[in-house]
Amino acid sequence: MSVEEELNASVAYTPLQRMRHSAAHVMAEAVQELFPNARFAIGPAIEDGFYYDMELPRPLTPEDLPVIEERMRASIAANHPFMQSRWKREKALKYFRDHDQPYKVEIIENLADAEVGIFEQGPFLDLCRGPHVESTGKIGPVKLMRVAGAYWRGDEKRQMLQRIYGTAWFTQQDLDEYLERLEEAKKRDHRKLGKDLELFMISEDVGAGLPLWLPRGATVRRLLEEYILDLERKHGYQHVYTPNLAKLDLYKTSGHWEHYHDSMYPPMEMESGEELVLRPMNCPHHIQVYRHKMRSYRELPVSIAELGTMYRLERSGELSGLSRVRAMTLNDAHIFCTPEQMLPEFKKAVRMIERIYQDMGFKQYSYRLSLRDPNDKEKFIDNEQMWQQSEAALRQALKELDVPYYESIGDAAFYGPKLDVQVANVLGKDETISTVQIDFTLPERFDLEYIGEDGQPHRPVMVHRGGISTLERFMAFLIENFAGAFPLWLAPVQAVVIPISDEKHGDYAETVAERLREAGLRVEVDNRHERMNAKVRDAQLQKIPYMLVVGDKEAAADSVAVRLRSNENLGAVLVADFIRQALQIAAERSQELWPASESQPA
Amino acid sequence: MSVEEELNASVAYTPLQRMRHSAAHVMAEAVQELFPNARFAIGPAIEDGFYYDMELPRPLTPEDLPVIEERMRASIAANHPFMQSRWKREKALKYFRDHDQPYKVEIIENLADAEVGIFEQGPFLDLCRGPHVESTGKIGPVKLMRVAGAYWRGDEKRQMLQRIYGTAWFTQQDLDEYLERLEEAKKRDHRKLGKDLELFMISEDVGAGLPLWLPRGATVRRLLEEYILDLERKHGYQHVYTPNLAKLDLYKTSGHWEHYHDSMYPPMEMESGEELVLRPMNCPHHIQVYRHKMRSYRELPVSIAELGTMYRLERSGELSGLSRVRAMTLNDAHIFCTPEQMLPEFKKAVRMIERIYQDMGFKQYSYRLSLRDPNDKEKFIDNEQMWQQSEAALRQALKELDVPYYESIGDAAFYGPKLDVQVANVLGKDETISTVQIDFTLPERFDLEYIGEDGQPHRPVMVHRGGISTLERFMAFLIENFAGAFPLWLAPVQAVVIPISDEKHGDYAETVAERLREAGLRVEVDNRHERMNAKVRDAQLQKIPYMLVVGDKEAAADSVAVRLRSNENLGAVLVADFIRQALQIAAERSQELWPASESQPA
Repeated sequence: MSVEEELNASVAYTPLQRMRHSAAHVMAEAVQELFPNARFAIGPAIEDGFYYDMELPRPLTPEDLPVIEERMRASIAANHPFMQSRWKREKALKYFRDHDQPYKVEIIENLADAEVGIFEQGPFLDLCRGPHVESTGKIGPVKLMRVAGAYWRGDEKRQMLQRIYGTAWFTQQDLDEYLERLEEAKKRDHRKLGKDLELFMISEDVGAGLPLWLPRGATVRRLLEEYILDLERKHGYQHVYTPNLAKLDLYKTSGHWEHYHDSMYPPMEMESGEELVLRPMNCPHHIQVYRHKMRSYRELPVSIAELGTMYRLERSGELSGLSRVRAMTLNDAHIFCTPEQMLPEFKKAVRMIERIYQDMGFKQYSYRLSLRDPNDKEKFIDNEQMWQQSEAALRQALKELDVPYYESIGDAAFYGPKLDVQVANVLGKDETISTVQIDFTLPERFDLEYIGEDGQPHRPVMVHRGGISTLERFMAFLIENFAGAFPLWLAPVQAVVIPISDEKHGDYAETVAERLREAGLRVEVDNRHERMNAKVRDAQLQKIPYMLVVGDKEAAADSVAVRLRSNENLGAVLVADFIRQALQIAAERSQELWPASESQPA
Repeated sequence: MSVEEELNASVAYTPLQRMRHSAAHVMAEAVQELFPNARFAIGPAIEDGFYYDMELPRPLTPEDLPVIEERMRASIAANHPFMQSRWKREKALKYFRDHDQPYKVEIIENLADAEVGIFEQGPFLDLCRGPHVESTGKIGPVKLMRVAGAYWRGDEKRQMLQRIYGTAWFTQQDLDEYLERLEEAKKRDHRKLGKDLELFMISEDVGAGLPLWLPRGATVRRLLEEYILDLERKHGYQHVYTPNLAKLDLYKTSGHWEHYHDSMYPPMEMESGEELVLRPMNCPHHIQVYRHKMRSYRELPVSIAELGTMYRLERSGELSGLSRVRAMTLNDAHIFCTPEQMLPEFKKAVRMIERIYQDMGFKQYSYRLSLRDPNDKEKFIDNEQMWQQSEAALRQALKELDVPYYESIGDAAFYGPKLDVQVANVLGKDETISTVQIDFTLPERFDLEYIGEDGQPHRPVMVHRGGISTLERFMAFLIENFAGAFPLWLAPVQAVVIPISDEKHGDYAETVAERLREAGLRVEVDNRHERMNAKVRDAQLQKIPYMLVVGDKEAAADSVAVRLRSNENLGAVLVADFIRQALQIAAERSQELWPASESQPA
């Protein structure tokens, strides 16, 4: 969003946003009192709060925030009215020049208007369209969160400013709940848990946005892969393996080079002069598989699926753990079908996605119809008829599915609109996990055909479909969803056997572990020279579902003392019973670790 | 090999090679008779035959070959002696200039010697070091095979010449057997079978050397992946997933950029100025995983494994099907261990490879100790002590393994010597399938450490190990080894159910297929409107292990009439019995499709 867009956006503020925008002005007022030479840039309301960018004589420290907050509370207590006026452009320019506010001057210079809006509260005057609350007393409880660096206009070549993030709510309870949610999110942050649980790593030597899956994370990924490949096989998908790169010309044909160029890696020039490029999407490769032979209507639909690795040049500032990366493996599929099969295939794809969510235990999800922005001819293919045709098809499919959905402008693929399935994360926010698209564009561009019942060539339709999104994004989602405590079937280590005494019970521990392994469970023995309680605590920190403590009594009875990661103690269970129970829970993909009726506090 | 090297190599010819080299001269003599203006380049003996490169006034056609052969036989019948002489350099230069033989002139100009060798038989005189047979009459039966294009000195910027390939043997029987082997190899050629059986494709639009695995080939690959991952898991390997690219600097640290640069893709320059490059090997990534935390001697050995995709810039002329490609996925592993663990780990890796061969049914394999070429300081790291140390370690390991082996100079990795395990293909030729290496170099370059029992940091040793080589190369090998008729456990489609009449028996066929599928078998129903015999023939061409024919009798008896792809007819078998038998054969990874005692001709 440009500075000018941001200023315009403020016009549409909700009451809460309006109040937060006012809080941003009050924060600027407090900063100006502390640093009379502060130069201010912009200070909008954002999701969950507000910020203000400014140039200050020294870098702020966390200790500065309570001081600024204190002064804000004084201004709020003073209940200064927000007074609006309209100034002639020249007057405003002169005022901000005289007050050494070059960012405000630059904003005005970029505005075409003859007059600009000014807001004033107490001692602070700002260039602003508003709207604002009546007076500072209407601002609810505020809290300043952190200081970050931000380039003026987001441009790395311009001045680095300091940005203070704050939040404001109507009631203290709202604020407290928000801070609690943040705490919870921090604990569940997949970047933190990914490190603590040794699921993945980022290596400075390998590169930003290129995570390495450590053995435990790789185990979860392999289980997810096996799950999804098996499900797709049962649904008639045919899996392929295709290379992660291709000639640049392939993406000129597909339209990626024209519409998706900014996200693509630089092409590599080969000695023969041809250019190869890492693929930004898998569709063109699957199209090659479709047309490696002439297809008959009898074969259709042909569903080509792959765990396909793709490469996207996310900006380095936007990279984050597993959720924003530069190389990702998508659970991708392309269904090539007749126009008559299009709607049934679309619906089957949605039903399969619902099945996945059921297996994963996702209860809250919603449907988003992602449409093009008709004004953006660069990002979206310019073919009015195609867009109308495919939007109509999607709306028809949604009607037949009879599911509620909302629309989102500008989120379509460049080649057509799509249905995004949004799953609510633990903080109640929606993330796109799955997507189903109807595509008339690529079959046309690649001149795809099938021989119809009439013996004549016809154009197939493509349904693009992502089931569990990329394994990277899905893993990030799962880690946060489960706070690292994976359900049994996905847990990288399912049980740890803990001998009470290494010398006396070490052998029995190994025997138990071996039996569990033979039954197909993922088991470790903790034979470190540590106290038993320390081992139990470590296993709990590692979120290992079961701790199986073994001593004399258990060795004599062929049993294990079962403790859950929740610290619940189930007491002694025969090894054979434990194996049977654990296998059943894993097979059911249950989120529970033990049947409720059988769990007895020890 | 340069032209000069090729000329030198001729000195070491075996008797068979010497005779073939003489046949090349006789072929040139025959060509000169047909085209008096022919310009000759070089004509060495090669494996299984010989060739001669020449510039001719018109392109040769296959019809020219018998004509040339006829004249060769006349020369052989004439029994011209091969007469050797030494000419002064200037005399030779003048002679070949006068006779318009610019390639010979260029060769002499590049030789430092004051005298050059000349051989003459009948009307033909050539620049040549020999050796040759006494006279043309000593040349055995010859056959010219084909004509191909070849650049002078292998340089794409120089003259394109015509190369005639021929073969010659001591006896007619040897020649006939060789031609038969060639026929057999042609039938088994994985490129041909890969197309016929729809296992993989090469797409001009994607790029040379970048095969796409079609659904049936992908099924075999997935089965191989599952097999090897499972085996490795049982052997204590920890699997990871790591990105296919990294910062160029990583390969400067590792030494790849210095010693392996020619095989690497061009680096990609990112907007931040850093360079990323597709990885030529997986070792540096696994090293990152090893050192993501401090390791204790108690954890060692740490075995990091991955189906790791790598990229190598093979020359376009050398690309071939799945066996020479530009992107490949290696069944790779790196074992980080203490010096004391090195030999035991090395031996364990070799034992596991032997286990793989047993499971795959490979009976003939041999061990090759691949050493550096001490004169090639560019290709191999220059560290005398390291090479001596690691060669000594490898020899010690081989001694302890007590296996016979032979040595090969120049086939080491740039960072150290290796043991290659060579499996004999159906033509009796050896291919490298597995490799185990001891590496002191990379631990040093990456400054790897572990904390020893003494609390001090120590340097671990790395054992590099490839089990089934790359999936591409292994698949090519398997296709040719089995002539496309995969053993049951690997067959992409294990059985096809064929209703005698589509209308009457189609439902029963579907029921049978569904029962087999539920049992875990890969089954198709052939419900095309074709005659039964045509369907059986097609299934045999597709090398599908079982054809299950069903009609009234089978439907009434809950059975199937089982026919093997060998066309052997087993008669009616109860569906339940068939399932039990097939599952057992698959579980045993048997190469047979039915127990011999139970197979009865119908």
